[in-house]
Amino acid sequence: MAASDVKLLGASPSPYVNRVQIALNLKSIEFEFLEETFGAKSELLLKSNPIHKKIPVMIHNDKPICESLIIVQYIDEVWSSGPTILPSDPYDRAMARFWAAFVGDKWYPALKELHAEEEEAKTAALEKLMEMMALWEDAFAKCGKGKGFFGGDCIGYLDIAFGSFLGWLRVTEEVLEIKLIDEAKTPGLAGWAERFCSHEAVKGVIPETEKLIGLAKIFQARAKAQSQN
Amino acid sequence: MAASDVKLLGASPSPYVNRVQIALNLKSIEFEFLEETFGAKSELLLKSNPIHKKIPVMIHNDKPICESLIIVQYIDEVWSSGPTILPSDPYDRAMARFWAAFVGDKWYPALKELHAEEEEAKTAALEKLMEMMALWEDAFAKCGKGKGFFGGDCIGYLDIAFGSFLGWLRVTEEVLEIKLIDEAKTPGLAGWAERFCSHEAVKGVIPETEKLIGLAKIFQARAKAQSQN
Repeated sequence: MAASDVKLLGASPSPYVNRVQIALNLKSIEFEFLEETFGAKSELLLKSNPIHKKIPVMIHNDKPICESLIIVQYIDEVWSSGPTILPSDPYDRAMARFWAAFVGDKWYPALKELHAEEEEAKTAALEKLMEMMALWEDAFAKCGKGKGFFGGDCIGYLDIAFGSFLGWLRVTEEVLEIKLIDEAKTPGLAGWAERFCSHEAVKGVIPETEKLIGLAKIFQARAKAQSQN
Repeated sequence: MAASDVKLLGASPSPYVNRVQIALNLKSIEFEFLEETFGAKSELLLKSNPIHKKIPVMIHNDKPICESLIIVQYIDEVWSSGPTILPSDPYDRAMARFWAAFVGDKWYPALKELHAEEEEAKTAALEKLMEMMALWEDAFAKCGKGKGFFGGDCIGYLDIAFGSFLGWLRVTEEVLEIKLIDEAKTPGLAGWAERFCSHEAVKGVIPETEKLIGLAKIFQARAKAQSQN
């Protein structure tokens, strides 16, 4: 497959973009990464995703596909000869889709709430998030069926959907000096996170924690400057 | 298939529940409808969907599946011998998934904004929604490829995802005395809406507009009473 067949419009610190990178790596698909500049939107992005104007967008044979989880499913369906990403059993697929939606709908918003300014809001957010981490530990046992990944023996849809956020989860842990995933409370997740991040398809995709912390400081400074204007 | 194999926890005025009913009808699957009481949540619902505590939940062979669009995909995958719901081409599937997500993420919230109290907010909401209706007209032409449904010749995933909201769309049109779908501005959608609502799998599922208007009045009165407490 020529590199030009698949283009990915994205930015490397975005977990949503990382999902697509990991899925493409899993299927050994060469692609051209077109880095979007933070704070700007390229002509190609606006043309390819006129509805949401957001990354990631994957362009395959000149046709754009938007929304990270939709792209991951598309990759799995088009390159069906590679390792499968979605579970083969319909019920397992439904569970993987349920928890993958939970990441964006509930879990990540809760993670962001941890960065609230007020101490009271922060405490409430931490309590809520710790309950969610217990749910994840349980989901890992059920979906993974005692194996190494949410997808069982191999990285699958839910590993990608949730695992892509491990970089920002670690940023939160470091900045707020808390532990969200640890050997004592979430032993299943702790082992999984290590296996996931050292997997061939993932290594080098999720940026290092220090780099993300640097970026977070830049984002915060910009947001503060904007709110003062 | 014995009726007891498939149970649906729902309430008939819910478009999310209607999606599942239509998908089951399309596949000619018998099911037991367990009506949830408005304002209460049954033990079975809380047990079956402990994360979101929301309808619809479909229970198939004692296993619960939650979230309407996940259930519709599950139905399509399990009863794969019936008419297919998702398009067979991966790109068409990605488009159907994109627009189906748009219904819940953007379009329905915009429809609800129309019921704002302030005149200015209402005018802005109407303008936004009319732009979206033009997007839908365009999406219908592209996804349906000039045929009768978003799914082409037959009702498919996106027909179900969007069409299930036609009842509440008509309520909005009647109550606010506006037209969101009409022959002049959205001729494609106008014909589609008629075909969709008179389809065998849909007839009798989406409640009549007058009934929904009555319900909307009850909801409003309850919300008002709650806000005064």
